[in-house]
Amino acid sequence: MIEQRIRNSFARQTMMQTLGAEIAEVGEGTVTLTAPILPGSRQQHGVAHAALSFAIGDSAAGYAALTLMPQDSEVMTAEMKINLLAPGAGDLLRATGKVIKPGRRLIIVTAEVHAITGEDEKLIALLQGTMVPVTV
Amino acid sequence: MIEQRIRNSFARQTMMQTLGAEIAEVGEGTVTLTAPILPGSRQQHGVAHAALSFAIGDSAAGYAALTLMPQDSEVMTAEMKINLLAPGAGDLLRATGKVIKPGRRLIIVTAEVHAITGEDEKLIALLQGTMVPVTV
Amino acid sequence: MIEQRIRNSFARQTMMQTLGAEIAEVGEGTVTLTAPILPGSRQQHGVAHAALSFAIGDSAAGYAALTLMPQDSEVMTAEMKINLLAPGAGDLLRATGKVIKPGRRLIIVTAEVHAITGEDEKLIALLQGTMVPVTV
Amino acid sequence: MIEQRIRNSFARQTMMQTLGAEIAEVGEGTVTLTAPILPGSRQQHGVAHAALSFAIGDSAAGYAALTLMPQDSEVMTAEMKINLLAPGAGDLLRATGKVIKPGRRLIIVTAEVHAITGEDEKLIALLQGTMVPVTV
Repeated sequence: MIEQRIRNSFARQTMMQTLGAEIAEVGEGTVTLTAPILPGSRQQHGVAHAALSFAIGDSAAGYAALTLMPQDSEVMTAEMKINLLAPGAGDLLRATGKVIKPGRRLIIVTAEVHAITGEDEKLIALLQGTMVPVTV
Repeated sequence: MIEQRIRNSFARQTMMQTLGAEIAEVGEGTVTLTAPILPGSRQQHGVAHAALSFAIGDSAAGYAALTLMPQDSEVMTAEMKINLLAPGAGDLLRATGKVIKPGRRLIIVTAEVHAITGEDEKLIALLQGTMVPVTV
Repeated sequence: MIEQRIRNSFARQTMMQTLGAEIAEVGEGTVTLTAPILPGSRQQHGVAHAALSFAIGDSAAGYAALTLMPQDSEVMTAEMKINLLAPGAGDLLRATGKVIKPGRRLIIVTAEVHAITGEDEKLIALLQGTMVPVTV
Repeated sequence: MIEQRIRNSFARQTMMQTLGAEIAEVGEGTVTLTAPILPGSRQQHGVAHAALSFAIGDSAAGYAALTLMPQDSEVMTAEMKINLLAPGAGDLLRATGKVIKPGRRLIIVTAEVHAITGEDEKLIALLQGTMVPVTV
């Protein structure tokens, strides 16, 4: 049910479609997204643009927060910090968002972004931020 | 000359083309980019996705750093923090990046992102981060 | 009047006294604090500990937010990011906090910390963060 | 041996003594510090000042980085972001720093700060930042 709400919201985020992102997994307080490194998602050296890691990391974290919210609420990002650890090269990127502390006014979240190449995975970005509930 | 280097690098960032971003101005230690809020750049309520503000804010800050670098260097984002102040609604977004402190190993940068609607402009995001030089 | 409220609150922050901090100036949406680099406020090389810059930058930003709040409210820090630009050496440190965007639920703030040596001043830290109102 | 280096460096950080901080544990890539909530470390409501959580979180993360550095290196904080999750109330605070990604030029670190009350512990702050090596 919460998964359906998240899939409906995700389907309306056109940025996610532009970047080819998909929902891989939805759990209580955690959501995993994946995205290919499309020809149109790159920086000047041909690897994933930092904005791709940000986009899926931020969205994974936001949807992780949404899994814990009442039916009539949505969330939006108040602030997000990303540390980029390694170039985004590989078959695809995978972002796992997680709620660290839910709250009525602020939801503290983190996300990890890995680059996946065959069986290998490499941590390429770490995000930490704040979601705020919005009534819709 | 530095402007040409920046335009060449920018042209290879396919993410910038995907988002419709353009270089508006290049100065010493500052670069301004603009981007429309394309149908494919939105979140679930139809306004600009946070990742659009991040993408152009981060790139404007990175190119601002590049204006102060020697010929054989490029920069990459080590970390970036974004505070989102208001929804990204309007005719277009404009990001102005600025170098706060250049350095041999770390370049501290900020960026402001405004939503422009006719004559009005509204600050919608504030970024603060670190670029690192990379020899290419 | 707002200045008196801030001085009363500041006087109750024992950490400010421990660090020798003082209020230098209070304006609408901006507060400036100063602190000496006490023998007990240093890191292992004898310059100011990062926590000193954080302490006065964060408090200056928090009190800047408080200047815009109704009488029965206080603020607390939800999150703060600090970039350290140069070692904290000199006669004293000065932190100027500023409200970037006031809001009912979130107040976005920045602060600059300078090291002052005689007539010279040097930017040593930059902070960007979020204050939240709390009713007391 | 690395523990001795860390204890020597820690003993020269006068800010740590001012705050009553102590080294609780040193492992490879991780360091734990504790600090009481001294009468002089508080904010206006009598709980721990945000700067106390920052101080021990940042130092725990820095020393975690130092455990992985060669003998002639030290580290300093380039940038640090802290999310404050709950008031700092209890018997003492405990900060555990951890290296997420070591590097020649940048070391990415996190820290968690818990408030300890008897057998209970509560996560009160989360830090994510960047240390840089400095040759001394």
